[in-house]
Order: sequence, then C-alpha cells, then structure tokens
Amino acid sequence: MKALVHITLKKGVLDPQGKAIGHALLGLGFPSVGDVRQGKFIEIELAETDESRARDAVKQMCERLLANTVIENYAIELRP
Amino acid sequence: MKALVHITLKKGVLDPQGKAIGHALLGLGFPSVGDVRQGKFIEIELAETDESRARDAVKQMCERLLANTVIENYAIELRP
Repeated sequence: MKALVHITLKKGVLDPQGKAIGHALLGLGFPSVGDVRQGKFIEIELAETDESRARDAVKQMCERLLANTVIENYAIELRP
Repeated sequence: MKALVHITLKKGVLDPQGKAIGHALLGLGFPSVGDVRQGKFIEIELAETDESRARDAVKQMCERLLANTVIENYAIELRP
C-alpha cells in the first residue's frame, strides 16, 4: 500500500517561498498568477495491507515527524 | 482558477531527503515503512478562466521555473 501525504501551510501563515515563486513567475511574464503557496508531497511505501491501520500509522507519522501541526496541515491519501 | 502542481523526482534519481525521512520513521517505530520519496506541491491562483490556456501557461511555468526537467517530473491539476 502507498500513502500520499500533502503537507501545506495553514491559512494565515506567511509563505515566503510561495511569494518568491509568485514574484518570479510574474517576472517571467505570467501576469495571470495570483497567490502561490508551496507545500510538501511525500510518498510512503507501506508493508501494511489493512487500510484503517495504515491510515492510523500515517496519521501518527504526520503528527510526530512529517508535519509541524502548529503551522501546517496534512492530508493523507491511500492507494492500494 | 487554481492550479495544483506536483513535482517529483524521476524514478532512478536518488532522493536523500526521502531516505532520511524513511530512516527517521523506522527509528520512531514504524516498521512497515518502505521506500519514501519527497516532492514538492505548489498551489497557484490564476486569473485565467479558460482551462486549456491555463494548462498551457502552467506547463510553461513548470518547464521554465518550477521543475528541473532533467531530474524531476511534474503533474498539473486544474480546479475551477
């Protein structure tokens, strides 16, 4: 089973990296670009085959290591 | 319109950051963890309303700035 985890900054948290990308895109001649936010995307191969146990494990991984839950949200997607 | 862009390392390209995450997760007591790969996730607000023009623009953004196409793949998803 494969877990796809998206880690994004919470709304209201400043994202200087996203801002830098936005400015660079405007400078490259893409005037339709508005707000840009950058997050992380993590793919984890899991030996676990039970979906609910896999989801619990990945949730714990996010809480304990992958995300800083003070400023970041995470979303978990599982694929067989 | 919003563009969601996933940038991931191509198969076969070493991913030391993913490896570090994998080792840390094993160390934290998640024995079911196998291969871990880390990528980037970028959300771009676009003033463009035409889907095909938006897709073309985001494709160009990826080729010119967001992705290093020698070692990275990108995937574009558009949301109204």
